[in-house]
Amino acid sequence: MFKKSTVEVLDTTLRDGSQTANIGFTLKDKIRIALELDQLGVDYIEGGWPGSNPKDKEFFSMIKKVSLSKSRIAAFGSTRRKDISAKGDVSLNSIIDSDVEVAVLFGKSWDLHVKDVIKSTLEENLEIVYDSIYYLKSHGLSVIFDAEHFYQGYIENSEYATKVIKTAQDAGADVIVLADTNGGTTPYEVFEITKSVSEQISVRLGVHMHNDIGCGVANSILAIKAGATHVQGTINGIGERTGNADLIQIIPTVFYKMGMNILNGEKSMVKLKEISRLVYELAGINPNPYQPYVGDNAFTHKAGVHVDAVMKIPRAYEHINPQMVGNRRKFVISEVSGTSNLVSYLKELGIELDKKDPRLKTALEMIKEKENTGYSFDIAPSSAVLIVFKALGIYQPFIKLDYWKVIGESSGLSIAVVKVNSELEVAEGVGPVHALDKAIRSALTKVYPEVSSIKLTDYRVILPGEVKNTESLVRVTIEFSDGTMVWKTEGVSTNVIEASVLALIDGLDYYLQVNKKIKGALSSLEV
Amino acid sequence: MFKKSTVEVLDTTLRDGSQTANIGFTLKDKIRIALELDQLGVDYIEGGWPGSNPKDKEFFSMIKKVSLSKSRIAAFGSTRRKDISAKGDVSLNSIIDSDVEVAVLFGKSWDLHVKDVIKSTLEENLEIVYDSIYYLKSHGLSVIFDAEHFYQGYIENSEYATKVIKTAQDAGADVIVLADTNGGTTPYEVFEITKSVSEQISVRLGVHMHNDIGCGVANSILAIKAGATHVQGTINGIGERTGNADLIQIIPTVFYKMGMNILNGEKSMVKLKEISRLVYELAGINPNPYQPYVGDNAFTHKAGVHVDAVMKIPRAYEHINPQMVGNRRKFVISEVSGTSNLVSYLKELGIELDKKDPRLKTALEMIKEKENTGYSFDIAPSSAVLIVFKALGIYQPFIKLDYWKVIGESSGLSIAVVKVNSELEVAEGVGPVHALDKAIRSALTKVYPEVSSIKLTDYRVILPGEVKNTESLVRVTIEFSDGTMVWKTEGVSTNVIEASVLALIDGLDYYLQVNKKIKGALSSLEV
Repeated sequence: MFKKSTVEVLDTTLRDGSQTANIGFTLKDKIRIALELDQLGVDYIEGGWPGSNPKDKEFFSMIKKVSLSKSRIAAFGSTRRKDISAKGDVSLNSIIDSDVEVAVLFGKSWDLHVKDVIKSTLEENLEIVYDSIYYLKSHGLSVIFDAEHFYQGYIENSEYATKVIKTAQDAGADVIVLADTNGGTTPYEVFEITKSVSEQISVRLGVHMHNDIGCGVANSILAIKAGATHVQGTINGIGERTGNADLIQIIPTVFYKMGMNILNGEKSMVKLKEISRLVYELAGINPNPYQPYVGDNAFTHKAGVHVDAVMKIPRAYEHINPQMVGNRRKFVISEVSGTSNLVSYLKELGIELDKKDPRLKTALEMIKEKENTGYSFDIAPSSAVLIVFKALGIYQPFIKLDYWKVIGESSGLSIAVVKVNSELEVAEGVGPVHALDKAIRSALTKVYPEVSSIKLTDYRVILPGEVKNTESLVRVTIEFSDGTMVWKTEGVSTNVIEASVLALIDGLDYYLQVNKKIKGALSSLEV
Repeated sequence: MFKKSTVEVLDTTLRDGSQTANIGFTLKDKIRIALELDQLGVDYIEGGWPGSNPKDKEFFSMIKKVSLSKSRIAAFGSTRRKDISAKGDVSLNSIIDSDVEVAVLFGKSWDLHVKDVIKSTLEENLEIVYDSIYYLKSHGLSVIFDAEHFYQGYIENSEYATKVIKTAQDAGADVIVLADTNGGTTPYEVFEITKSVSEQISVRLGVHMHNDIGCGVANSILAIKAGATHVQGTINGIGERTGNADLIQIIPTVFYKMGMNILNGEKSMVKLKEISRLVYELAGINPNPYQPYVGDNAFTHKAGVHVDAVMKIPRAYEHINPQMVGNRRKFVISEVSGTSNLVSYLKELGIELDKKDPRLKTALEMIKEKENTGYSFDIAPSSAVLIVFKALGIYQPFIKLDYWKVIGESSGLSIAVVKVNSELEVAEGVGPVHALDKAIRSALTKVYPEVSSIKLTDYRVILPGEVKNTESLVRVTIEFSDGTMVWKTEGVSTNVIEASVLALIDGLDYYLQVNKKIKGALSSLEV
């Protein structure tokens, strides 16, 4: 018998997550994600739908070759077709052929779908469910039965929906999963229905939620409160339409707020941000900065009163310590922020200042002025820090860009010519920004060899505003890293190349200011 | 006495929303948003915090000059400081000076904040709450009292938290709002606490939720279910950290799922997508395609089985009709999608094909091949449609790009030279893409004058993957419009300019294919 205080996790990032518009994983990506999910301590990894596409089939044969420490691999598929025996059903057999320990089988529990989508009868569908589960069980598989559209089915015909899951239980299903496939069930309905079902089912009860009314996470939490001990979802909530329930948000709430066991406990919690980032990267979509728990802004404070209070007592405006999910606290520099935010930034650089220092007020004025021209420093604080250094009088002019020019831009290579600190340099690259980056650095490395260790880790072009054209203002943000420190700068111009050059120069400049001189100069400053 | 079946909406996009990292509205933006909120039928518009910054003060004097049809403007502020009378408190007087009908006053209800943040006593804080409300009421204002951190306060000291809101009621507050300021309260706690409070309070009860554990929307819905009839939030859920509860998601659930009155009913619901977009645009952030109800993918179907079923019975995989919130259904073209998706695209263009047509299979193969090289057609379907036209044999070569070259790129203007359909053209522009766009069009307009009416409405550069550098593959997507039709294309290359040219050419080509020839050619085709 399963323990009521432990919640099992089935991750379907590789299957339901692959059904997201804009997202497609390569086979290599899928293997990498599976390995990370295993490290995280996920109980089941739903690897794909072997009956539906060849990439998924390959996944199952590849994953056999690696040894996993905890996770069990599951293959997804549908109950048998009507008018055919389970033994003769291609889809069921492809699950068996994929040679996994666990099958996730979805079947109909909403009478509308039985009658109007698969054009069967209510009685026949019960046989379909029974046969399909029985067949897989007799081949030695564990079977997780996903009752598709269960909540809607229950609301419209509770007797039939209940009959379907009882049939699945009778056929030997190990876990019965209630799915809100259309994602439109309200939280109070989810709680009541799950509670009622949990009193009628003796095997482990699970839930599979979608986010169509923005309640995917809360519905999962409420279902667990009502008795479910198995939860399905995806990393970052990727999935059909508005997505599946986001495991990244569910898991820490179950552990920290509900006090139940999940994954490998604390050891897993601190990895949540990291795995969230990996999946964004492989999916090729930008991380959501506002994502609960792991977003870059999840513990970012902007209003002056919040910053003041958090600096005294973090829990005044933080529901948990950000480190508990691998995240960190940030303060924003912007026109509405106060000098406290600047103070906290400078502190990280080893510069201790009082928030009433008049030079900080000057710095804020200069920042506001720049923001009026299209800059937004909260996304690229290092460009703002350069302004603060100027206001404090500790800025040193390491880089002087005399001019830059890109010549010979064609389908092939670009050639850039720059004059930096009176050094004339030329470089070629794939695209003008690449060529400029190379030319500027080769001019600088002569005097500052340390700039060669700087890597560009992200480059983005944004039109600030939705409806724009090629003549509009563009904002380029660049992220840099030297292996230990990460910093972001920005440039704004109507010309995308000029904006890129501004951000590039700021990034190199910031590095020199912070690492080469500022620290040494500190002792001689009245700070 | 208020009606239990009507839910009042207070929008705080202009106040709490302005506290979002990365977002800052201009005064003009704020006025425009207020006018749209009034049109939407919002009951209260919280315009700002007059005591905290000058931009907010200006807003209140500007908004007096326009006439609103329904909304009442509210000013936000804190209860009086300790050791000062209400009469002498700058913040309270700035609310009065802003000359609004309604004040939203926030005060402490969590004993931790009383003792450790404002360093007061529990008794003194009750006096602060009472005095502040009484003072504003005596100046003829309606007062909405926001009990900051109410849920946490209640969990740690329910007696005191309850005493605070009863004091507010005694002082004459018109609405008592329970705030989950840190956003960490679980849905079941919210339901229970709200229910218990609603039995003890006789004035209107409201809620103000944050999204730190991903439950902002569900918590608002549950609080309404438990008796609240006033809900606060922001458009798109913008706000401190992970944001406020998203009104765009709460409103349609209250109306369509809970069957309660809200805003101007159906008339307001169909405007939800439009106002969501406006706020994204003015905030300068990209719309979230996965946003419930209004996201571009909210009713986008990718899996073949889903598309098949939705084409027969929409409610099989849609919780409501997308038009009910001003959205629309879409099908995705991608490597995992089937030919049904292509059929539905072609149908929109007036081309009726059977999903078993072998040419569609060829088209899908060609699409998959391109996707392997970095394309992702679900974000730019028009580039995929061009491939389908080729597979169908109805593509006509209107545009032949002989070569392109950008010369003289410097801080000033770029000059582009192109040879298109044997026409040599030169143009200058701000940045290479702008120059190329102009040159290509001037070559084309000689033969196809209609291309001059095409506008570029969006231009984006994405590195598919998070950690990249200036040498990586880039994907450029461009959105075009001719005033009635909107279409999107993409180009992929290591060179951002080449990728832009590919997307530009595809966009002009698509327009010519669809509008100039395809329709005429249809009659002669075996389709």
